[in-house]
Amino acid sequence: MTSKTAKKVRSLHQKKYRLQENLFLVEGAKSVVELLDSNFQIEMLFYTEKFENQYNDYFNKLPFSVFTEKIAAPQLAKISTFKSNEMALAVVQIPENKPLKINNELVLVLADIRDPGNLGTIIRIADWYGISKIICSKTSVDWYNPKVISGSMGSFLRVKPFYTDLENFLAQSQKASIPIFGTFLKGENIHQTKAISQGILVIGNESKGIPPLLEKWISHRLTIPKFGNAESLNAGIATAIICDNFRRNSTKKRIKNQ
Amino acid sequence: MTSKTAKKVRSLHQKKYRLQENLFLVEGAKSVVELLDSNFQIEMLFYTEKFENQYNDYFNKLPFSVFTEKIAAPQLAKISTFKSNEMALAVVQIPENKPLKINNELVLVLADIRDPGNLGTIIRIADWYGISKIICSKTSVDWYNPKVISGSMGSFLRVKPFYTDLENFLAQSQKASIPIFGTFLKGENIHQTKAISQGILVIGNESKGIPPLLEKWISHRLTIPKFGNAESLNAGIATAIICDNFRRNSTKKRIKNQ
Repeated sequence: MTSKTAKKVRSLHQKKYRLQENLFLVEGAKSVVELLDSNFQIEMLFYTEKFENQYNDYFNKLPFSVFTEKIAAPQLAKISTFKSNEMALAVVQIPENKPLKINNELVLVLADIRDPGNLGTIIRIADWYGISKIICSKTSVDWYNPKVISGSMGSFLRVKPFYTDLENFLAQSQKASIPIFGTFLKGENIHQTKAISQGILVIGNESKGIPPLLEKWISHRLTIPKFGNAESLNAGIATAIICDNFRRNSTKKRIKNQ
Repeated sequence: MTSKTAKKVRSLHQKKYRLQENLFLVEGAKSVVELLDSNFQIEMLFYTEKFENQYNDYFNKLPFSVFTEKIAAPQLAKISTFKSNEMALAVVQIPENKPLKINNELVLVLADIRDPGNLGTIIRIADWYGISKIICSKTSVDWYNPKVISGSMGSFLRVKPFYTDLENFLAQSQKASIPIFGTFLKGENIHQTKAISQGILVIGNESKGIPPLLEKWISHRLTIPKFGNAESLNAGIATAIICDNFRRNSTKKRIKNQ
């Protein structure tokens, strides 16, 4: 690998260069293997002998246009954001940020999630509960941050983002009579709500919750019942609990575990 | 602050010295304020003028034996694990690791949680759902790791740990006819289980799940139903969803939010 290439890959650790190059990184065996099975446009693939031996079959799926290079694990670690990476790293095109058509389905709206670990976890939760679209405020952390991608455990391949102005998005949703849910300290106990299989769930900022500017668009105020003394729950945890309660008894088909 | 004191406080960032000194750190205004209201034994308190002005009343609660020192924020940041700390840091005695009497209640057993962020989150979830005892395998991450303490958002003051041999603990629990729950890919759908207000919930390792050695003690195998394609859920997320389902319809009194 030339030092120029190494420098280019490393530059993608930073948001500035991801935006400039319209590229992001997918790291580690599991994520890369799932990536090879997806429709994402791979530009470059760096892999070790170990990865080649273990996933030989997957190489046949790569289009000829993809630049591939077998390198040693220490070299791979140098261009990776992981402390160690003995398997693979791919450089991938960032899909276009385009509006997502909302059908009769459940979608998440992230008002201002700042922590990449939280976003990764939320993408994984969405994928578990069969939610495939997440609308993000422009102030939310970058979806293509390497920590988001690795934290999503491959779910970034199935869940699509759209970064947009949320006021506008929620106003349009309200016009279309789509129910808009949000969590507050005082609201309807989610243990008593009916199954919900369509609508928008707004997730607030980690420390400030749902921004006051967006509150007026919330048509259904929900509360997660508390049985002890913690003051609040982490944004990812709250998302998971609400999704679990929405899906309970819903008509959405449960996927059988293998 | 003498350089000797600064060195001592900084040494507590590491587990080795926490064990040796039997001391741990509580950092940031919110946690320190809650600490001052607790029964934990504080040894030293370092605070800024800003903290003093904002929480003046709390100083009256400090016993005379506590060493206190007002220092500048940059000095405080130097002894803190936080990037910046403009408020306070306390050095606190680690409570004795002693067996916890299990009454007719719900307790968590952590089989091998390695990530401090996950443990902090699990302590916070336990506190939200009125669970006050967590039994940890000796291989679990140190409860008094600064990331665990800060991640628990003050809940470490209300939830007690006991580190012990889990095989022995689960064998005794089984003898006492306490139901022992664990999450597996194949098990009873938690959306269909009845409310559970007593028993032991075993949480497995982040990547390996419940260790095979402990599986035989599980009397009730549970599954979180899946509606999409993610392969698994994070340990903290799974804990939250199960606790929420256990508490639903249980006789445990719901705490009214303020």
